[in-house]
Amino acid sequence: MIKIAVLGYGTIGSGVVEVLETNREHITQTAGQEIEVKYVLDLRDFPGDPIQEKIVHDYEIIKNDPEIQIVVEAMGGVEPAYTFVKGALLEGKHVATSNKALVAKHGAELLEIAKEREINFLFEASVGGGIPIIRPLVTSLTADIVEEITGILNGTTNYMLTKMSTEGSDYNEVLKDAQAKGYAEADPTADVEGYDACRKIAILTSLVCGKTVDFEEIHTEGISKITPEDIAYAKAMGRSIKLLATSRGDGNGYYAMVAPFMLGEDHPLNNVNGVFNAIFVHGNMLGDAMFYGSGAGKLPTASAVAADIVDIAKHLKRNIMITYSAEKMNLLDYKQAEYAYFVRTTDSEEQVKAVFDNPALIKIKEVTGETAFVTAKMKEETYLEKAKQLSGIKQMIRVD
Amino acid sequence: MIKIAVLGYGTIGSGVVEVLETNREHITQTAGQEIEVKYVLDLRDFPGDPIQEKIVHDYEIIKNDPEIQIVVEAMGGVEPAYTFVKGALLEGKHVATSNKALVAKHGAELLEIAKEREINFLFEASVGGGIPIIRPLVTSLTADIVEEITGILNGTTNYMLTKMSTEGSDYNEVLKDAQAKGYAEADPTADVEGYDACRKIAILTSLVCGKTVDFEEIHTEGISKITPEDIAYAKAMGRSIKLLATSRGDGNGYYAMVAPFMLGEDHPLNNVNGVFNAIFVHGNMLGDAMFYGSGAGKLPTASAVAADIVDIAKHLKRNIMITYSAEKMNLLDYKQAEYAYFVRTTDSEEQVKAVFDNPALIKIKEVTGETAFVTAKMKEETYLEKAKQLSGIKQMIRVD
Repeated sequence: MIKIAVLGYGTIGSGVVEVLETNREHITQTAGQEIEVKYVLDLRDFPGDPIQEKIVHDYEIIKNDPEIQIVVEAMGGVEPAYTFVKGALLEGKHVATSNKALVAKHGAELLEIAKEREINFLFEASVGGGIPIIRPLVTSLTADIVEEITGILNGTTNYMLTKMSTEGSDYNEVLKDAQAKGYAEADPTADVEGYDACRKIAILTSLVCGKTVDFEEIHTEGISKITPEDIAYAKAMGRSIKLLATSRGDGNGYYAMVAPFMLGEDHPLNNVNGVFNAIFVHGNMLGDAMFYGSGAGKLPTASAVAADIVDIAKHLKRNIMITYSAEKMNLLDYKQAEYAYFVRTTDSEEQVKAVFDNPALIKIKEVTGETAFVTAKMKEETYLEKAKQLSGIKQMIRVD
Repeated sequence: MIKIAVLGYGTIGSGVVEVLETNREHITQTAGQEIEVKYVLDLRDFPGDPIQEKIVHDYEIIKNDPEIQIVVEAMGGVEPAYTFVKGALLEGKHVATSNKALVAKHGAELLEIAKEREINFLFEASVGGGIPIIRPLVTSLTADIVEEITGILNGTTNYMLTKMSTEGSDYNEVLKDAQAKGYAEADPTADVEGYDACRKIAILTSLVCGKTVDFEEIHTEGISKITPEDIAYAKAMGRSIKLLATSRGDGNGYYAMVAPFMLGEDHPLNNVNGVFNAIFVHGNMLGDAMFYGSGAGKLPTASAVAADIVDIAKHLKRNIMITYSAEKMNLLDYKQAEYAYFVRTTDSEEQVKAVFDNPALIKIKEVTGETAFVTAKMKEETYLEKAKQLSGIKQMIRVD
């Protein structure tokens, strides 16, 4: 029997307890032995909940109990999660976490401590919720040079964009709806401005290139400026608008970015709707692959954490993840990456044509009094230079 | 340095050599040491090809060379692959194979030998080509009870069905086109009659339930009876027709089947077109997930074999796959599984209504002189009983 402690009895923490309980017999079989939750750390009490007898308010109890072999961190945020996780690893306890903020900020250091001590620091649930992506990247896509990894990594914004597309409603309406349904938080900034997706693509890029990507260096745009008019144009073009978190390599390094993109019908991510997430990977030998599933939610995310617990149970004496080092990965300037650009401006067609060669003009009956067009593919730097010559640009969305 | 031998220099075997060569530096890094191809076994010679100096015609040379630590089997077919692979494992050599026929027939025995000797028998490429599915099933979906695993597992038939749908052409035309493009073999039976997909779903089901599923017990239908009229009806219903290989559990066991299905727009497999493959998994905690990519083709498949080689290189002294036993898994009778059924018959509407309660009639302008309808959801056994009361049924396709 392996005894574990769960830090935080919120959505994910209580989900982990539920998964371990519901699938007890199956997990005992896959893990090779029984997994028992000995403690749950939370500031609150849960009178009436069977978990109450396991609740502790003092982390030291967990840290100092030699019976605890695995600590599950499900608190979120950098502190005190970082202090607790580092403390657990230094005590020789394995850690599984769903905490993207922690991994994006301190992943390399925590991996290094785990490696030194021949224990494990696993974080499958930190990206893509229940979708297996970190383990496949590290253990399955090992013979490929990953030339692109692009994900729809935030369920809240994907739900909102899908709803804007199916119902024609505007950003503020769908935000209220998402908040009412519990998909968006009262302060939705981290989701809608792309900060959540930014941390996740930083983690994926670090895994792909073997060094640490600083998430603060990733150019990040959210969806708050997307309007029903943009969606109408996209539909007329047979495209969807998705918030992508993307890294592309060109042999010299990676361009990383979080921003809304217009995707064509053939793009594997085009049909990923609602709260679902998906990660598209292009390997130089594999070609295109995609991993799709529930990117958030209590049980899917908890299922990924529980799978990490099982993996740890099978490797109690052995470090299994070869991942990324603390060495910094310098990203390439995103303005050197090439896209086509969808642009809406109050400038006239003639003015547009004087600046951009052969712009593909888009006219839809829903919107008048402006010029909308798609440029040829060019470096963003080039686009920005040209765009300076127009005075009325009100929207630019990259086209992939 | 690890020395390996490749059995068979056909599409996959030469692909493995190419992947190892193209990504040499990267693979040396992920594997922790260099991988060198010492021998390639083939009946043919390849004068002028740099591989020629490594060609051997006698398997005994490989089997008896203690320097060879990994044997890559890329010959296909059960014999002599089985004899060679078993011989290699008994000599303590690891094996990676792309051979679904071998794995479906002898997987449990070969896994058992590998386990006893603390070596590895890996076969990621045997299902879904380059798509990572076997390793994720075994190492990532460990906390879930897999209630359904359903795949588009044959690229040839998916290409043909996609082409029938986009171009309205008939089965024989698209078969000729697929043969001309090299997607279908001169004798296309294994693909078009579903035998290839049958072996693959047998392997996936064995992995999910931990026991051996006999592929000969899986009810298997192909696509050779699908007509342009069926496709026209499907389109009118907003559906696609896909050859699915599916296993569904009901707590007592699994129903397995290979057959054409009509899928709705919301089904994650609905948009998998052309030669692409995808595997849909439903876990009791995870919910829906999907793995998508190139299900065949030289380099994608070889990339999966090469990933197995890397995994073996990292586990030279250790058996890593906990998979399935030789114990037989008795499948449930597929006639007890429940679907709705799309039916075309020369019986009149009145006759149909006398037999099926509230059939959903489908009328399209392209087809006259028949009655087409979708039944309510019912056990196949029930459907078959009712269908006996009609005399003119010319098509039945399950609806999912």
